[in-house]
Amino acid sequence: MQRVAIIGASGYTGVELARILCNHPEFELTAATSRQYAGKPLSEVFPNLLGKTDLICENLSIDELCNRADLFFAAVPHKTAMDLVPQLLQEGKKVVDLSADYRLRDVSTYEEWYQEHSSPEFIAEAAYGLPELYRDQIKKARLVANPGCYPTSIILGLAPLLRDGLIDPTTIIADSKSGTTGAGRSASVGTLFCEVHDGFKAYKVGGTHRHLPEIEQELSVLNKDDVTISFTPHLLPISRGILSTTYANLTSDISEDELRKLYLSTYKNEPFVRIVPEGTFPATQHVRGSNFCDIGFAIDKRANRIIVISAIDNIVKGAAGQAVHNMNLMCGINETTGLEGAPFFP
Amino acid sequence: MQRVAIIGASGYTGVELARILCNHPEFELTAATSRQYAGKPLSEVFPNLLGKTDLICENLSIDELCNRADLFFAAVPHKTAMDLVPQLLQEGKKVVDLSADYRLRDVSTYEEWYQEHSSPEFIAEAAYGLPELYRDQIKKARLVANPGCYPTSIILGLAPLLRDGLIDPTTIIADSKSGTTGAGRSASVGTLFCEVHDGFKAYKVGGTHRHLPEIEQELSVLNKDDVTISFTPHLLPISRGILSTTYANLTSDISEDELRKLYLSTYKNEPFVRIVPEGTFPATQHVRGSNFCDIGFAIDKRANRIIVISAIDNIVKGAAGQAVHNMNLMCGINETTGLEGAPFFP
Amino acid sequence: MQRVAIIGASGYTGVELARILCNHPEFELTAATSRQYAGKPLSEVFPNLLGKTDLICENLSIDELCNRADLFFAAVPHKTAMDLVPQLLQEGKKVVDLSADYRLRDVSTYEEWYQEHSSPEFIAEAAYGLPELYRDQIKKARLVANPGCYPTSIILGLAPLLRDGLIDPTTIIADSKSGTTGAGRSASVGTLFCEVHDGFKAYKVGGTHRHLPEIEQELSVLNKDDVTISFTPHLLPISRGILSTTYANLTSDISEDELRKLYLSTYKNEPFVRIVPEGTFPATQHVRGSNFCDIGFAIDKRANRIIVISAIDNIVKGAAGQAVHNMNLMCGINETTGLEGAPFFP
Amino acid sequence: MQRVAIIGASGYTGVELARILCNHPEFELTAATSRQYAGKPLSEVFPNLLGKTDLICENLSIDELCNRADLFFAAVPHKTAMDLVPQLLQEGKKVVDLSADYRLRDVSTYEEWYQEHSSPEFIAEAAYGLPELYRDQIKKARLVANPGCYPTSIILGLAPLLRDGLIDPTTIIADSKSGTTGAGRSASVGTLFCEVHDGFKAYKVGGTHRHLPEIEQELSVLNKDDVTISFTPHLLPISRGILSTTYANLTSDISEDELRKLYLSTYKNEPFVRIVPEGTFPATQHVRGSNFCDIGFAIDKRANRIIVISAIDNIVKGAAGQAVHNMNLMCGINETTGLEGAPFFP
Repeated sequence: MQRVAIIGASGYTGVELARILCNHPEFELTAATSRQYAGKPLSEVFPNLLGKTDLICENLSIDELCNRADLFFAAVPHKTAMDLVPQLLQEGKKVVDLSADYRLRDVSTYEEWYQEHSSPEFIAEAAYGLPELYRDQIKKARLVANPGCYPTSIILGLAPLLRDGLIDPTTIIADSKSGTTGAGRSASVGTLFCEVHDGFKAYKVGGTHRHLPEIEQELSVLNKDDVTISFTPHLLPISRGILSTTYANLTSDISEDELRKLYLSTYKNEPFVRIVPEGTFPATQHVRGSNFCDIGFAIDKRANRIIVISAIDNIVKGAAGQAVHNMNLMCGINETTGLEGAPFFP
Repeated sequence: MQRVAIIGASGYTGVELARILCNHPEFELTAATSRQYAGKPLSEVFPNLLGKTDLICENLSIDELCNRADLFFAAVPHKTAMDLVPQLLQEGKKVVDLSADYRLRDVSTYEEWYQEHSSPEFIAEAAYGLPELYRDQIKKARLVANPGCYPTSIILGLAPLLRDGLIDPTTIIADSKSGTTGAGRSASVGTLFCEVHDGFKAYKVGGTHRHLPEIEQELSVLNKDDVTISFTPHLLPISRGILSTTYANLTSDISEDELRKLYLSTYKNEPFVRIVPEGTFPATQHVRGSNFCDIGFAIDKRANRIIVISAIDNIVKGAAGQAVHNMNLMCGINETTGLEGAPFFP
Repeated sequence: MQRVAIIGASGYTGVELARILCNHPEFELTAATSRQYAGKPLSEVFPNLLGKTDLICENLSIDELCNRADLFFAAVPHKTAMDLVPQLLQEGKKVVDLSADYRLRDVSTYEEWYQEHSSPEFIAEAAYGLPELYRDQIKKARLVANPGCYPTSIILGLAPLLRDGLIDPTTIIADSKSGTTGAGRSASVGTLFCEVHDGFKAYKVGGTHRHLPEIEQELSVLNKDDVTISFTPHLLPISRGILSTTYANLTSDISEDELRKLYLSTYKNEPFVRIVPEGTFPATQHVRGSNFCDIGFAIDKRANRIIVISAIDNIVKGAAGQAVHNMNLMCGINETTGLEGAPFFP
Repeated sequence: MQRVAIIGASGYTGVELARILCNHPEFELTAATSRQYAGKPLSEVFPNLLGKTDLICENLSIDELCNRADLFFAAVPHKTAMDLVPQLLQEGKKVVDLSADYRLRDVSTYEEWYQEHSSPEFIAEAAYGLPELYRDQIKKARLVANPGCYPTSIILGLAPLLRDGLIDPTTIIADSKSGTTGAGRSASVGTLFCEVHDGFKAYKVGGTHRHLPEIEQELSVLNKDDVTISFTPHLLPISRGILSTTYANLTSDISEDELRKLYLSTYKNEPFVRIVPEGTFPATQHVRGSNFCDIGFAIDKRANRIIVISAIDNIVKGAAGQAVHNMNLMCGINETTGLEGAPFFP
């Protein structure tokens, strides 16, 4: 059993990592840190874990951490991560960083959207942890930057189209809707039950969400040229799930059948991407609790546009599950281990 | 007191009409028809109405109906409406038709999207019941075609922009999300609680929803030329509410301030349109239970697009409330009567 | 127009008071206080009120308050209320206090469950604001202690039975379930959307909720002797609504028909109590947004128990609506004014 | 790999059985029957299963079924089950019956609450499939009557108390609340999203729910004498979960500590019962998706009552999960196999 630890276990990503890892046959969860809950059993913070783990939340120094595990999940906010990750790497540890700190390859872009970067020298070696695009780099990496939830859904949906030049990159619009786990577990009026329940709204309208440069970075790689998109996130009254509806003008007169073949062949060896059957479309409730990304599409012939629908569970494929997938790849074990569970419905 | 009746009172639009009308000071609800529930008190079908109305659901002939009221709300499915409405008009009655049967001015478009029309001769005289655009016609009409819920939200959001030529009409994309009352009250597996709850999905993807020709008809009028848009409806796990996120490329370098002035001046005398404050965006929970349409917008400068967000309660402003608004106009009373209630939050 | 003010307008009770009052034909809402949001338009704190009120949240001294209105709703936490209310009374103002501070007639009971009371001399004159039991006192009162939400539902359900000695008071068990507005609008992890949604739990199990002495006080009055009950509150994943399921052993062999007559006659003149039809039971969604208390019951013949089900909207009949009802009574106007709206369904 | 089949795969219990079985390491799901969906891939009926199973829904005769598997889950309605199960047994097959047909040992009680029994001769040999009480019988059984969801939660909560004579059995009241999966997947108005969402209600009030004789049968066994209880089911606006709040008078002056020791020792070897920590209480969201039954309790000293709170996922521990647990026991494999997943939260 290899030893892994979660740094920042008291958020929704933390508890989901713990849920997956406590049943993982090849890794042992040996530490879970939380300043706020230090001294409390993790199963008291998250009673769903009662009987599944005896871990006590701790507030550990880097040295203590390094004695406890070989691979770390950094599930802390950006900025905190970049102060911490280099120390772990210098001690020879592997890190899956779930913050944004090593996702953007261009440090000036990072600093424009976030803040000054304290360890830019590690950016270059970080693999962008989307296994469908970067499996080989991830396998060799000691630092993986786990993708954002919105980017995961949008990039996987558009990859086949952009790579083959089938859409006009100046026309891409991603209209995304996320469950409320995406807003984190900090106490705030805006995410109280009564504020979110039985309601729906957009936020960060007009191209101001921090996932935008990450999305554009990866779409630009696929397009082999800069891509600028419009992206609007919305808040859904559900716990888990992102559904992205992405629009783009088609560059040629391609049929739905040809597109279907393209999607199926692109993802035929991917264990966690499902192309949904013709005439059906993804739904967040059909990927709930799983590491799947479901993709469907339709052509709007009247407007010569393609509409791609992609759905993930934002704290699994959009966070904890993808992080475990990356861990599996980094450690050379079967990549689906611990992630085989079918989605929950209903 | 004028006498009004609801034809088809057993759906969600029916109960909402009854809710509004049972407190309306100038109209008396004198009949509510339902084949399925004939003989049952309406307050047994909808226990929220207990103590508010003593009406019994009835299955009435046209003659009986005509003896009972002077104005009718036809809250029956399309096709049923067009067989019924002409008979009421011929008896000198006024009708607000909540079906799609008289919304499309071009009968061939209607027949392409629905079925053969049995009374096309009444289409020309029907006023399209969006008071913000057709108040004068509605006041004089004996037949008002009450708009669809999605069209109401999208048309009001785009009207100022299209009228002034500020957007490229070939680039319009409307991504709309609707509460489940929009799917009606018929028993069906797809709208069971467990199928919809804690989930989210798109449907009628690719330009196949029947509200599309209605939206395009009205946008074309505003644009003074044909408009083709992409429109994707989604199903929200909420009861009431539509939020439409509409994208279009700007044709000039206009500022948000100028646009704000345009929206404010366009709707300054409209009792049921609210332009939300700068930096804020509409939410369905802020219009819940009211006849308001809230509108906000942002410019995505990087992509030179405007994003317009509009929110309504789909069974009030998108159906029953707008129908009562139309009734008020048709009957010459203060147009906001019975509709002054503030939205419910939370 | 009489002038009223809300002290503590930034909670869910505050916004509901504002919603009701902004359409009240005989009162003008002249001030809304909030330390936290002082200087902000109330419609910015609660965007549902946009266009319905121009009030700015203020932080006002008692003197300033007294210049602004003649009747006050104290929608502040207990303790804060008792420091404030006496000053308003001394200035000749009327007060509806929505806190617990003047509900318990026995100051030692109050101090056992809450804290030291700073103005016990006002307890005796406070009317307990349940109009169905204390209408005459309320009409004459200058201070009304607005009942708690759980007590309202339980007391109205049991009153006919206890008054007539039909149940054994030692066997009363009230199992109550409340929507999350009852937990208030303060930021806290426990009431975040993701903690409450798609879940259900009990809290304050074992007779420790502070509404217990209030319930027992009023049941004891009805019983003309001390009553001790078991009461378990639960948290529902809904915004509005309380449903109480109350059990008691019957003392005699009474039939459902006789009981129905008793309930109907007890409440026949009450505008806000509805006895639901035979064979049906109340549901929170059928009182949503209204001031109704719905009551139904069944006899469990096998166990010789009666089960009473009562449902209210906890922030209307359980808080703001009942407060406005009390205001109407205190000011001598038609008691249902401003509260006639039918419940929202769905 | 042993072969198992699901008879009646198109309901919520069916899909949950399929979800669990498609990851079970020692059993292969070889057939799934459904008249309604015969010919359709199971993953088209339940898109969450896409990529997890290739099974096609079939309408199979008994002979065909018997060729396909060695153990059967009968997930069909009562009455249908009792016509089917004997034929399977006669062919030497093992059966876990999820209907009510073999749960009641007294055929006259069965016939009083359901209908005439067509195969009463099999009742005596059926093991009641609550492993915590009947593990040994289940291991030897060829027919297991899988318990109802409400009974599972209530019986496990009360077993230690009744066995030790700690409560007065005439005072037991079980107030239970269930998620909507319990109502099944048939199209009906009453379980439409808009009818259930944001609401709460009781049903079958007064001792008329068919789970009542099943609960009383098992409580009577534990009590070694007949027990009559009051039981009120309620419908929660959640998909999965039952929480039962059960009240009883204590017969002696026992402390919470002593009770805690009793509960802990009773269930110390049970893999699927968790006694929650002191001062905390179960919540449905903490058992969601798992086979756990969580139990907590408090003493109401003022009333000398114990309140026991028990929570399960009604379609796992209350149906499909318990059925797989029974299958594991009947087939002699590790009883937790396939059921180790931690609950989902949030």
